[in-house]
Amino acid sequence: MTLPGSALSAPVPAPTPAATAAPASPLLDPGLLAAAPAGLAEVQRLVREIVHECADALRGRGGPLPALGPEDLTGLVDAQFPDGVVPRAGAGRDAVLALARACAETTVDLADPRAAAHLQPPSLAVAAAADVLAGIFNASVDTWDSGPYAVEIERRLVKGLCELAGYGPDADGVLTPGGSASNLQALLIARDTATAKLRDVRGRGLAGFGQRPLVYCSELAHFSVARACAVLGLGEDAVRTVPVDGRHRMRPEALDALLRRADPDTDLPVAVVATAGTTDYGSVDPLPEVAAVVREHGVRLHVDAAYGCGALFSERLRPLLAGVEEADTVTLDLHKTAWQPAAASVLLARDAADFAPTTGLRVAYLNPDDDGEAGYDGLLGLSLQTTRRADALKVAATFLALGTDGVGAMLDACHDLARHAERSIAAHPRLALTAGATLSTVVFRYVTDDPAASDRVNGALRRRLLRTGAALVGRTDAPGADGRPAVHLKLTLLNPRTRATDVDGLLDAVVRAGLAVEAIEEGSVA
Amino acid sequence: MTLPGSALSAPVPAPTPAATAAPASPLLDPGLLAAAPAGLAEVQRLVREIVHECADALRGRGGPLPALGPEDLTGLVDAQFPDGVVPRAGAGRDAVLALARACAETTVDLADPRAAAHLQPPSLAVAAAADVLAGIFNASVDTWDSGPYAVEIERRLVKGLCELAGYGPDADGVLTPGGSASNLQALLIARDTATAKLRDVRGRGLAGFGQRPLVYCSELAHFSVARACAVLGLGEDAVRTVPVDGRHRMRPEALDALLRRADPDTDLPVAVVATAGTTDYGSVDPLPEVAAVVREHGVRLHVDAAYGCGALFSERLRPLLAGVEEADTVTLDLHKTAWQPAAASVLLARDAADFAPTTGLRVAYLNPDDDGEAGYDGLLGLSLQTTRRADALKVAATFLALGTDGVGAMLDACHDLARHAERSIAAHPRLALTAGATLSTVVFRYVTDDPAASDRVNGALRRRLLRTGAALVGRTDAPGADGRPAVHLKLTLLNPRTRATDVDGLLDAVVRAGLAVEAIEEGSVA
Repeated sequence: MTLPGSALSAPVPAPTPAATAAPASPLLDPGLLAAAPAGLAEVQRLVREIVHECADALRGRGGPLPALGPEDLTGLVDAQFPDGVVPRAGAGRDAVLALARACAETTVDLADPRAAAHLQPPSLAVAAAADVLAGIFNASVDTWDSGPYAVEIERRLVKGLCELAGYGPDADGVLTPGGSASNLQALLIARDTATAKLRDVRGRGLAGFGQRPLVYCSELAHFSVARACAVLGLGEDAVRTVPVDGRHRMRPEALDALLRRADPDTDLPVAVVATAGTTDYGSVDPLPEVAAVVREHGVRLHVDAAYGCGALFSERLRPLLAGVEEADTVTLDLHKTAWQPAAASVLLARDAADFAPTTGLRVAYLNPDDDGEAGYDGLLGLSLQTTRRADALKVAATFLALGTDGVGAMLDACHDLARHAERSIAAHPRLALTAGATLSTVVFRYVTDDPAASDRVNGALRRRLLRTGAALVGRTDAPGADGRPAVHLKLTLLNPRTRATDVDGLLDAVVRAGLAVEAIEEGSVA
Repeated sequence: MTLPGSALSAPVPAPTPAATAAPASPLLDPGLLAAAPAGLAEVQRLVREIVHECADALRGRGGPLPALGPEDLTGLVDAQFPDGVVPRAGAGRDAVLALARACAETTVDLADPRAAAHLQPPSLAVAAAADVLAGIFNASVDTWDSGPYAVEIERRLVKGLCELAGYGPDADGVLTPGGSASNLQALLIARDTATAKLRDVRGRGLAGFGQRPLVYCSELAHFSVARACAVLGLGEDAVRTVPVDGRHRMRPEALDALLRRADPDTDLPVAVVATAGTTDYGSVDPLPEVAAVVREHGVRLHVDAAYGCGALFSERLRPLLAGVEEADTVTLDLHKTAWQPAAASVLLARDAADFAPTTGLRVAYLNPDDDGEAGYDGLLGLSLQTTRRADALKVAATFLALGTDGVGAMLDACHDLARHAERSIAAHPRLALTAGATLSTVVFRYVTDDPAASDRVNGALRRRLLRTGAALVGRTDAPGADGRPAVHLKLTLLNPRTRATDVDGLLDAVVRAGLAVEAIEEGSVA
């Protein structure tokens, strides 16, 4: 299977430095530093040439993925770099442009309306461009003298987000490498808060701890919650899953019953994690009701709004996040519904003091006391990282350019598309709607002639779309007719430029692929 | 104090959207996606304009930092963005360019030869430019269909690094958000390996664990080791610090004695962490001797080569890392001695199976079994992150362009500079050398007239250099004449374009600042 018009489908081999015909010269100066005057000129020139290669390669593409299977791609990249990508001798600019061209030819094109699989969005041009500031200056926000301007910008970015979340002046926050990292840090704070109530456990380790810590979340919470519990030494069986209602939202009365069942002699409820935007459905737990239960039991509340955070910017969808201001901590992934290139996750805490015991350390070589007293303080004390990229710059540039209204309008557009997809699926005889849109996701199945073949065909039709490069849809397990997990398909619509007719075309492609898979299966039986 | 020639020192206020005179138009299309055809053009245009602003602003600078104190900068940024950086209405391209200009005016300029403080290097132009690929396409390496090309490139990058480290074909690795994260994951693997020997503790949590876990490292190991122990629930007192020799290297016989002292009934040695490039001195623990001790005791060995990893690329310095191939895991920070913009840390493991129990999970929506069997597998199972930026692209571009020889030559140049600094310090009557160069760091003190004033004056002279923007040197605590921690200064030389005369000028600036601080102190007393 080849992709018409792509250089990878031409009779020439995959791009290699020698095969690249771009009007390139060797790097003038291989060790050139980005922030030096000649380096800035080189960054600009090389970005121009990289973008030129990308634009040219994208013109030849026929879909959001290359028409290649994994083993084909492996072979092509092996051919492109027979000596690997860590050679002893450099090949200069040509090799960089060959990498760029092959990347544009064979990466997933999230700006293609037929890409609707995952929660990573197509990034905004303004964010991708402004991110070059982080790369050129390599500021690190851990200390003032590693990046004073970036420190100031991150402080203001966090402050603005705290206000949008409804937090008061005591709140603070920090950018993290991702939603999984934000959730980990939130549960670390919760663990240490809970255990500090018992005694000072931080200096005692696993052995000095007599009670069983428990973390409560819905059965649809992100797997990073359970993983964080394992990392933090709470054990994966620390998680107590709360059942959901028919709209895929945590049932507050079930949470209440579980919390009541905790034995004060042996159990230590550490936190409740509510989800604002489940990965599979985009469903939002009922935050005010959950918060009321949590308050009654005196447990911490963390809201994982990795996906749902975009509703903070939308008048239409903001009501979904009502109650978020009652959370002790909130995860926001701006590399999801604020259209940032990764990473741009944020952990907010209603009370800045939450950060102090866990990460508020002073280090002689980074933030000695007398420097801190003189105002030379960075953001080390908020983060589990040390060196930390100035991701705040691209995010601030985006909000300064578009405003929250501009970002919110993008989510509204995606929400409209998801509502449209919901209607189209419901109306299609070969598609069955499992869950309609809360944010920008719909879950459904291709209806097979033989119900017993549903899992196999739905999985295979998705891979067929991948392999032909025609479309990229998501998949997950959701309860089937018998209540057991069944393979489902999913559209995560995060491209606001997609049109309703594109969505219908995507659903048609799903049906055609399903019919083709069924025909092949029948043929192989016959 | 103002910085001559900078817009911030001019009688006009700090740059604001209205005050920026660049020939800018509003963003044509605020919601433009980077990978769309018009978006690519916009990225290129905006990068050109951003670089233009930066070049213009840098021309007006007089040193590596702006001649501003923290409170001055806060005031300027408040004036620049009176409504914060998360406004409801966007201001288009002009706001982005104002941000870029102010960033270039007031960030630390790591390409200035007088910046020699921290372990974050000036980034390479080729890396900063190639990083735009990560931003434009927003590939995520967790799943194949989120970024197939980036997955292939990261696999090859890791393979090349494993080979350089001397690992065999069973090794594997993963990029992480930083050295602290790499060390955390290494100790997580070590914790779970050690506890699995006792019983399956992962499902039992803190409470089900009867022995005291211990982690051994030198007293000069990075603080992220102790922090990782706290995060992992081992407790900060899990750390046993091993004394160092006169060259700031772990004493293997002291390690052996400590390990012998562990009580098999109550103690559980989890890992030994050797440091290849201490933050303060660049000293490298004697890896073969440490490895021999560790082997005898059957404990895991992690080598934190966050700083020292650059020696892998240098014929001259490679012998410092002899023995690293005996480590179970290694941390490499390519955003240190491979001149990458952050983040570009790597965790390598000699045995790929190390990753399986901790992070090798399968998730229905990301990597279901039947997709994995069909080859559609990403890198989720290696990482504690889920969405993960394609940092491998900039790193691969760098090595492809420069080769490891090119990167190694940069470290050699920095090593030469550090040797020169060592000699100049030793020869200067007002400077006292504490530690000479192993990699690219020297530690010293300004010699005060009054020995009792040494700490205060050394701290204050560094801040004086910061405030005048003239120079940026590091500081740390090192044992003074009485053996107690005393404030020391540090040059971390990571700019290969710096000349020996620049280093001498930097040292002169230190002495002048010291004299000035002393004169002011005497004046205030008189």
